[in-house]
Amino acid sequence: MALTRAECLARDKADPLAPFRERFVLPENIVYLDGNSLGALPKAAAARARKAVEVEWGGDLIKSWNVHRWIDLPQRAGAKIARLVGAKAGEVIVADSTSVNLFKMLAAALRMRPERRVILSEPGNFPTDLYVAQGLIEMLGGKHELKLVPGEKVAAAIDENVAVVSLTHVNYKSGRIHDMAAVTAAAHAKGALMLWDLAHSAGALPVDLNAARADLAVGCGYKYLNGGPGAPAYLFVAERHQEAVRPPLAGWMGHAHPFTFDVDYEPAKGIARNLCGTPPIISMSALDAALDVLIEADMTLIREKSLAMGDLFLALVDQECGSHGFKNGSAARHERGSQVGLLHPEGYAIMQALIARGVIGDFRAPDMLRFGFAPLYNRYVEVWDAVAGLKAVMDSRAWDTASFKARAAVT
Amino acid sequence: MALTRAECLARDKADPLAPFRERFVLPENIVYLDGNSLGALPKAAAARARKAVEVEWGGDLIKSWNVHRWIDLPQRAGAKIARLVGAKAGEVIVADSTSVNLFKMLAAALRMRPERRVILSEPGNFPTDLYVAQGLIEMLGGKHELKLVPGEKVAAAIDENVAVVSLTHVNYKSGRIHDMAAVTAAAHAKGALMLWDLAHSAGALPVDLNAARADLAVGCGYKYLNGGPGAPAYLFVAERHQEAVRPPLAGWMGHAHPFTFDVDYEPAKGIARNLCGTPPIISMSALDAALDVLIEADMTLIREKSLAMGDLFLALVDQECGSHGFKNGSAARHERGSQVGLLHPEGYAIMQALIARGVIGDFRAPDMLRFGFAPLYNRYVEVWDAVAGLKAVMDSRAWDTASFKARAAVT
Repeated sequence: MALTRAECLARDKADPLAPFRERFVLPENIVYLDGNSLGALPKAAAARARKAVEVEWGGDLIKSWNVHRWIDLPQRAGAKIARLVGAKAGEVIVADSTSVNLFKMLAAALRMRPERRVILSEPGNFPTDLYVAQGLIEMLGGKHELKLVPGEKVAAAIDENVAVVSLTHVNYKSGRIHDMAAVTAAAHAKGALMLWDLAHSAGALPVDLNAARADLAVGCGYKYLNGGPGAPAYLFVAERHQEAVRPPLAGWMGHAHPFTFDVDYEPAKGIARNLCGTPPIISMSALDAALDVLIEADMTLIREKSLAMGDLFLALVDQECGSHGFKNGSAARHERGSQVGLLHPEGYAIMQALIARGVIGDFRAPDMLRFGFAPLYNRYVEVWDAVAGLKAVMDSRAWDTASFKARAAVT
Repeated sequence: MALTRAECLARDKADPLAPFRERFVLPENIVYLDGNSLGALPKAAAARARKAVEVEWGGDLIKSWNVHRWIDLPQRAGAKIARLVGAKAGEVIVADSTSVNLFKMLAAALRMRPERRVILSEPGNFPTDLYVAQGLIEMLGGKHELKLVPGEKVAAAIDENVAVVSLTHVNYKSGRIHDMAAVTAAAHAKGALMLWDLAHSAGALPVDLNAARADLAVGCGYKYLNGGPGAPAYLFVAERHQEAVRPPLAGWMGHAHPFTFDVDYEPAKGIARNLCGTPPIISMSALDAALDVLIEADMTLIREKSLAMGDLFLALVDQECGSHGFKNGSAARHERGSQVGLLHPEGYAIMQALIARGVIGDFRAPDMLRFGFAPLYNRYVEVWDAVAGLKAVMDSRAWDTASFKARAAVT
């Protein structure tokens, strides 16, 4: 029997996470399925950014470093993220961008395994993860190698030459989840360190770094954490490694005594040494407030709803768009992150037409329409409306117009 | 004849920069002479931050990368800074923190002079400038050396072993201005590169990187640029060197084609390759709006007023506090930046008492009370009120209390 829109509305009514929707600003008449690129705006983050600007900066000026505790905001926000990723409060800190943090963590890993020469990753890893490794290797004189093997073969490819295995927990494109515990164990079995990029998993599904015995991790503040455009990122260093990390980016905010203005660098104790320069307080304040919303929610419920939304989406595409030639480009259900992918040779133009109708997903070359589910603010009925929009685009061939084709041609 | 408060008010009335004061939010009953640590809030920056959050992030979500041109905000803000520092629009880009940018520029410099082993700086340089060099050298295996010689001897100490001379144009503590053209010429005469940190000069006095033939530069967004707490920083690469810079922090935003998601890093043409990760858009938007205010002003007038305020401050300290044992710790007038320093053995406690009275300067160990002048929003009468506050503190020995002494003891 066919699924109906009314059934989707009924599921929203029964959804224990439904009240969170009101905690977000979402534009009218838009179905936003791109929270995996930029999370929606939590109302608390808007209020907090305004307070950071108008009350803290404008009113209390330099005193805010103490009065409003700007000085330990990286630690405080980090402690909130720690709860989302199975870490202790002192193992996570918010700083810089994911790319810069990757650099720090890869450099630390190579230093901790000086006799080893290989950074192991997969070709489909998020590009910046690969670029940063390439830049680091070049900087270190080319003695190291970035070795790429397909994701499912990574564990078997770890050997005694591997200093660090660097993977994104959930692949940005396929949405496939790596088995964190298994790959980490495989790395450790060969004496390698394990570095996880949590950009597409933290906030969307349960992550337990310490249960997996992960060594290092980084993650993004602006996807499922809803921290705002270009929100500061974070990094994790397992407690047992913290004293071994000598930060290559040895900035004053990571100094043991930043305000004594010593001539010589002395890294701070613990995670704080991984700070570098002065952090962007307004952006970080928005992230900090966004985290408060997220940590209120039960991650098990988030995961259940995320999977249910993905199932619903794929079922509805079968039901409504079965004749339009989409292939399922999603990972298998048991290893699927909080996103699905549809493959179509005209994917770019179709996504442009869909966005023009107010259904926001995104496109990843060569042929994937990508849809992300953010269970805190997405509704089941939006899944219906998204697929209905897709059907309308396909039925009317709205995508097959000069303007969309032209745009596709230049991209 | 003694200077009077009425005379200060009259100078404000005649000040061509006076109308800029209204463009800033400043708390009542506060004299803020710490714009060299954190510039005051421009009203336009508050409005812009709010727009970035509520309209752009909240309303247009991911589309804002194009619709609101987040994607080239680093270049657009950089072009505005270029006007303040004597650079071409394509030579400056806003990115990361000053510390991270220093790392990029020092690494680039060492790569451009592979046969040379020395980074030359001065012991009184801002600590993060030294720390970053130390971290880089350690990371590169200790083949290089950070050599420190007193500021006035740097030019004479440059030899064929020096890869790069790294100096802050205006010293954060002494306020002394280096002769940019002369030191740069001395570096070039020995084949060394010249890297300037403009944190305490750009926005406060005329800077002309290209007239001096500077090679590389970095600077801070949150001091005289008024970009907000931890505002993103910037970097400069002279056009002639841009293709030679291979970014060590090879992130996706500096890739030639960030959205094709290639596996291999290919640096963007020109200054953009010096981007790394996704920038913090809210913080960067505030900075961008703050720059619009600053570039409206005539830098010659800013410099004249800045010097006049420093002169007035020092004259008033002589006149009002002559018996209280302050020594002048400022640079000589012809090489004085936009700040003055008073030396006193009880400097810390005195500054705490002064701040408690609403006069905000800061303290730099062991004995300096530091006062910065931001000609766009500071008034001559505030200089009077600051010194009157200082006189009141000293006359009443308000600083000589258990609480201030105790606080001094633990810092």
